[in-house]
Amino acid sequence: MTALKLLVQKFGGTSVDDIERLKIVAKLVDKTRRAGYSVVVVVSAMGDTTDHLLKQMESLRRTRPPPGAVKAMTPSNLREMDALLATGEQVSSALLATALYAIGHDTRSLNGAQAGIYTDQQHGRARIQGIDTSHVRQLLQENQIPVVAGFQGVAPDGSVTTLGRGGSDTTAVALAAALEAEECRIYTDVDGVYTADPRIVLDARRIAQLTYEEMLEFSSLGTKVMHSRAVEFAGKHNVPLRVLSSFRDGPGTLIAGERPAGGSRPLEQPLITGVACNQDEAKLTVSGIPDKPGIADDILGPIARVNIEVDMIVQNVGEHGLTDLTFTVHRRDYLQARELLGRVAEKLGARGTSGDSSIGKLSIVGVGMRSHAGIASRMFQALAREDINIMMISTSEIKISVVVKETHLETGVKALHRAFELEWDKPGQEVVSNRSQGETDPAPRQASQV
Amino acid sequence: MTALKLLVQKFGGTSVDDIERLKIVAKLVDKTRRAGYSVVVVVSAMGDTTDHLLKQMESLRRTRPPPGAVKAMTPSNLREMDALLATGEQVSSALLATALYAIGHDTRSLNGAQAGIYTDQQHGRARIQGIDTSHVRQLLQENQIPVVAGFQGVAPDGSVTTLGRGGSDTTAVALAAALEAEECRIYTDVDGVYTADPRIVLDARRIAQLTYEEMLEFSSLGTKVMHSRAVEFAGKHNVPLRVLSSFRDGPGTLIAGERPAGGSRPLEQPLITGVACNQDEAKLTVSGIPDKPGIADDILGPIARVNIEVDMIVQNVGEHGLTDLTFTVHRRDYLQARELLGRVAEKLGARGTSGDSSIGKLSIVGVGMRSHAGIASRMFQALAREDINIMMISTSEIKISVVVKETHLETGVKALHRAFELEWDKPGQEVVSNRSQGETDPAPRQASQV
Repeated sequence: MTALKLLVQKFGGTSVDDIERLKIVAKLVDKTRRAGYSVVVVVSAMGDTTDHLLKQMESLRRTRPPPGAVKAMTPSNLREMDALLATGEQVSSALLATALYAIGHDTRSLNGAQAGIYTDQQHGRARIQGIDTSHVRQLLQENQIPVVAGFQGVAPDGSVTTLGRGGSDTTAVALAAALEAEECRIYTDVDGVYTADPRIVLDARRIAQLTYEEMLEFSSLGTKVMHSRAVEFAGKHNVPLRVLSSFRDGPGTLIAGERPAGGSRPLEQPLITGVACNQDEAKLTVSGIPDKPGIADDILGPIARVNIEVDMIVQNVGEHGLTDLTFTVHRRDYLQARELLGRVAEKLGARGTSGDSSIGKLSIVGVGMRSHAGIASRMFQALAREDINIMMISTSEIKISVVVKETHLETGVKALHRAFELEWDKPGQEVVSNRSQGETDPAPRQASQV
Repeated sequence: MTALKLLVQKFGGTSVDDIERLKIVAKLVDKTRRAGYSVVVVVSAMGDTTDHLLKQMESLRRTRPPPGAVKAMTPSNLREMDALLATGEQVSSALLATALYAIGHDTRSLNGAQAGIYTDQQHGRARIQGIDTSHVRQLLQENQIPVVAGFQGVAPDGSVTTLGRGGSDTTAVALAAALEAEECRIYTDVDGVYTADPRIVLDARRIAQLTYEEMLEFSSLGTKVMHSRAVEFAGKHNVPLRVLSSFRDGPGTLIAGERPAGGSRPLEQPLITGVACNQDEAKLTVSGIPDKPGIADDILGPIARVNIEVDMIVQNVGEHGLTDLTFTVHRRDYLQARELLGRVAEKLGARGTSGDSSIGKLSIVGVGMRSHAGIASRMFQALAREDINIMMISTSEIKISVVVKETHLETGVKALHRAFELEWDKPGQEVVSNRSQGETDPAPRQASQV
C-alpha cells in the first residue's frame, strides 16, 4: 500500500471527560481517516480520574510509619504513584479504541511500554530518552489506528514512569517527531490561541499562526492551552503543532517555526501577535537592604527552597548603599512568601517589607517587535491614556510585561488590543477572524487565555 | 543472605474493598514478614471497579456500527476489554504497595507483564503458558515485597490479557508453583471451608484440611470460596493452598494432596468431609421421547448453544421405546431453558414437558467414601427419616448429590450433618472446631457455602 500522510491527534482535558465525549472524539478521528490520513491518537485520562487516584494514594500515605522505619518516603512512593496514575490514560485509550472499533475501525490501544516510549528513571517527571516506533509503525502499516495512552513511558528497570505536567502533549509531540508526522494536533476546549481573552476583548481574533517562541511566551504567561514543555519539544524537533477545539470545527492555531512567507510585504507583519493578561499574581517588596553581591539570593533563596516560583524580579538602584527588591509570585503562594520574607528581612536588618495581592500582569507578545523600535513606548502610552499606573516592567526579546493594579487589567487588555490594531484583518496576514465563520455557538470558552 | 521460606498471599473481593481494608491487608503482610517469611502478594481489583469499567465499555459497544462495517465485533473488543480491566488490579497493587511502604517495607507493584506472566492469545480467558520469575526473584533477593496485579498477563504479541473467572486466584497459584512457595494463601471474607453452611447448621465446623479433589467438588457445588480452576491448577502442581479470612485470625482450611497421615488409625478417617447445599437450581423434564441414540444431544444441544449450563442429567429407562429425560440448570436460566425445551419437544413429537424451579441440591463430599460401602444408603436413610423425597441422584467417586424440594434443603443439610457425625471432634482427625477458639464476632459469613 501507498504510505498515507500521517497526523498525530491528541485529546485531553474536557475532550475525554466522559463516554459521550469519547464518542465525539472517535468521530473526529474517523473524519481525519476519511480525509485520507493515517492517524496515531494520544489520549489523557478522563475527567477527574487522576484526582481521584491521587486522593486514594494520599490517604494511604498519611499512614504513619512505625518507629524504626526511618527511610525517606519519596522514591518508592513516586514509583507507585506512577504505576497508579498511568492506569488513568490506559483506561481512556482502551475505551477510545473500543469507540473507534464500534464505528468500524481497526484499532489497538497501547500503554507507554507497548508504544515504545522509553524514559529515564525520574518517577513523576520522567524525560523521554527514545522512542521505538516499530510497534506503532507496524500497526499503521496494517491500516490500524494506534491509540496511545499519553503521559507515560517505561524506565530502564522496566517500571512505569509518568512524564509530569504537560505529559500527554509531550507524548504526542514526541511521537509526531519520531514518526515524522505532518502535524501534531492538540485538541482542547478552546479553538485556538487568541489575540486576547475573548471574554474581555469582544473583537479578539483567533491567531492563524504563531512561532514556537511566541507560543512559549504565551504558555508561560498563563495560557492553559498547552504546557510550555511540549511546545519546547516541538520547536526543538520542528514538529508543526495545531491547537484545535474538539467541540467545534475550525482550523485552530498553527504553531510552527516560521510564519508563512510574507514575501514582498514584510512591513505588513503585525507588530505584536497578542495580548496576555494574568490575574493570579501578587507582589512583595523588601526595602532598605544592603546593596551588595549575593543579596538577591539571600532573599530569594529561602523562597525557592519551599518551591515557590518567583516570576518577575526588579531591583532598584539604591542610595546610601541600600536598595529595594520587588518580585512577583503566584497569588496562592502570597501568604507563605510574605511570612518567609518577613523573617529574612529581619535577619538582614532590612528597613521593612510590603506586599500587594491585588495586582495583575499585562503582556504583549510577538516576534514582530524584534524588528520594530518603539513598541514599548507605544505600550506605555496606551496604558497612560487610560490612567493606568505601571508598577513593574519586564522584557524579553519578543515580550513586554507590566504589572498593574488588578482593577486595571480589563481596561488595559482592551487598550493594548486596540493600540496594536489586533482587531483588524490585515492583508498579507494569516490571522483569521473568529467572528467570520458563521459559528452559532456562544462565546468561545477560553480560560485565562491570551 | 539466607533464603527465607516463601509464602504467596492473595487478597481479593471484600479484602480490598477500600482504602481502610488495604491498610488492614498491609498489616497482614507485615505480620507474615515478621514471622520470618518472604512474601509475594497478589491482589484483585478493588470493590466494584471491574463492574464500573465494564459498564463504561458496554455503553460504547452499544454504538451502532455504520453501514458497511460488517466485521465481527468480538476479537478487538475483547482485546480492549482486557487492556481496560487489567487496570483495576494495577490500581490495587500500586495502592497496596504504597500502604506497605507507609509502614516501612521495601516493596514494588508489578503488572502482569512486569511479573513475567506469559499467556496465550485468548483475550478474556487467557491461559498461563509460562512464568519468567527472574524479576520477582530479584526483588525477593533484595528483600522487597513484590505486589503483583492478579488476573492478567501478556500475550505473545505483547498485548495485555486477562485470565477470566478465578483469574487472580490462578495468578497466585501459578506464582506459588513457579517460585516453589511453601503455601499459597487465599484471603477471602470467610475463614475457611465448613462441614456445612454455618448459617444453617449451628454446630458446623471449619475443616482443617481437604484434598484438592474434595475442594474441586465443593467448588463445583456452589461454594464461592475459590474458583475450581485455581484449585485444579494447585492440584496439578501440588501447591498447598490455604483459605483464610482477612477479617479475623485463624488457621483457615488447608487444601493439599494428602490428608495428614492417618497412620495406625485408618478407620477413624471421617466417612465424609462436608455437606453442601445449593438453592439456585431448577429442573426440567421432557417425557415421551423416542429412546434412540442421539436423543440426549437433540434435546440438550440447543440448550448448550445458548450457553446455559446443564448440571445433573437423568434419563429413565423407557417403555414402548419411549423415555423421559430430566436435567437441572441454574435458576436464572430456567425460563429461557423451558421455552427452548418446549420448542425442541414439539419438533421431536414428545409427549410433553414439565419443570420445577423450587428445588435444591444436597451433596455429601469426601474421599472417605471411596473406602466405605453403604455411604449412599446411609444418606438416603437419613433423608427418609425426615420424610424428604429424593427427585434425582447423581454420584461421583467422592460425592453424592440429590435433588429435593427447596423447602427440604435446610432440614436435609442438618440431617446429613448429624447422620455423618460431622459435629464431632474426632481423635486422629484434623478438623478444628470453629466454636473452640473463643472468637467474639458473630456467626461466620459464608455465602452458599459447604
